[in-house]
Amino acid sequence: MSIGTLILLRHGESEWNASNQFTGWVDVRLTEKGEGEGKRAGQLLAEAGVLPDLLYTSLLRRAISTANLALDAADRHWIPVVRDWRLNERHYGALQGLNKAETKDKYGNEQFMLWRRSYDTPPPAIEVGSEFSQDADPRYADLDSVPLTECLADVVERLIPYFEETIVADLKAGKNVLVAAHGNSLRALVKYLDEISDADIAELNIPTGIPLQYDLTEVDGKLKPTNPGGTYLDPEAAAAGAAAVANQGGK
Amino acid sequence: MSIGTLILLRHGESEWNASNQFTGWVDVRLTEKGEGEGKRAGQLLAEAGVLPDLLYTSLLRRAISTANLALDAADRHWIPVVRDWRLNERHYGALQGLNKAETKDKYGNEQFMLWRRSYDTPPPAIEVGSEFSQDADPRYADLDSVPLTECLADVVERLIPYFEETIVADLKAGKNVLVAAHGNSLRALVKYLDEISDADIAELNIPTGIPLQYDLTEVDGKLKPTNPGGTYLDPEAAAAGAAAVANQGGK
Repeated sequence: MSIGTLILLRHGESEWNASNQFTGWVDVRLTEKGEGEGKRAGQLLAEAGVLPDLLYTSLLRRAISTANLALDAADRHWIPVVRDWRLNERHYGALQGLNKAETKDKYGNEQFMLWRRSYDTPPPAIEVGSEFSQDADPRYADLDSVPLTECLADVVERLIPYFEETIVADLKAGKNVLVAAHGNSLRALVKYLDEISDADIAELNIPTGIPLQYDLTEVDGKLKPTNPGGTYLDPEAAAAGAAAVANQGGK
Repeated sequence: MSIGTLILLRHGESEWNASNQFTGWVDVRLTEKGEGEGKRAGQLLAEAGVLPDLLYTSLLRRAISTANLALDAADRHWIPVVRDWRLNERHYGALQGLNKAETKDKYGNEQFMLWRRSYDTPPPAIEVGSEFSQDADPRYADLDSVPLTECLADVVERLIPYFEETIVADLKAGKNVLVAAHGNSLRALVKYLDEISDADIAELNIPTGIPLQYDLTEVDGKLKPTNPGGTYLDPEAAAAGAAAVANQGGK
């Protein structure tokens, strides 16, 4: 049994991507452009003949909608689905809802980039019960505690054990797995797959809506990419998209 | 633990509902009207406060899309999903793709109604490898054999054991379960729940896109509706919709 292909897909443009706000666990919708990116992602999968057997999504609408649109366009709308909060975006704490450019102006570029890209410094915690907090959201009722903020290290800690227990088992069973998730939960996965250091991960940006394919082999029980860094199904669009992500905070 | 609520939802209008063709396992899309019905179904669920904890769908796009639209509108897009071919529409055999009015003209009303509503007379089998056959469809690759035609009794036989093993267990665990499926797979379920005879089920029609709620109690281990026949969340629209289904074959 050969190992399945792993396909990572960051959701298309959301309303708060468009308005340049920190989103985190706030459950905003895709824009019309984002919906188009979802469909286009499905066309890219179909054209490349990379057909998912199984879908994993976060519990957030922008990833779920992107996956629905992509799978519908790839004629794979019927595959099994698993949703889990561990694939959620990083919780952005008290920054959730704030405009990125205003935040950068107010706190300065150094603090702004520390919050965005530091591996282990979380933003200030969000206030329990406030407008953009998720502590009373029914979808997280089974969690012991809902996060009030997270750094990327926190995302790695919640996501990688889950990835190893579930998605890796499916890949080893020969299944092609599509993971529809978010900028920072996918950065956590890529860090793990490509063994990127805590420092170097700051430089890695993942564009919206372009499938990133990892071909895998097993070395001492662990899955390793045979194409380190993965392969974007539309490399030119991916390069432009990653540059746009890196430039957020501009006006 | 009280027993969960069961909500049945027939997909919204499909392209072949609109063009009056027998559909069965052919994987046609929703029309724009059908998409609106999906959203409206979700609004009805939200207004009634009947919030699904779990979704079951068939493997067919019109049911999957209807459920996606409804759950998105009800803010329940994040609930777990199970898809299974046993919830598929009845396979309509060699009638798949044919226009209903033309079929009625060609074979006469008696034969037409026998194929549509007889409990145990299947239409002629579809030819293997023909345009509207599913024998080579990858989504059914795990089946021992893909149906070439089915009568309602065949649907009961494939669906009810599955229902008892999976959905009933979830209901008994207190979960509200949404089942997004099809005219005939839902007729099979309603026949079982309401203990309708093989003869009387011919008269039962289920409208598209209107949630049908069953409140349940357990009697000798079996679930029984406390509201026999169920409760449509929009009774007026349901009555008009059921009459329209009964009248299919007209021009």
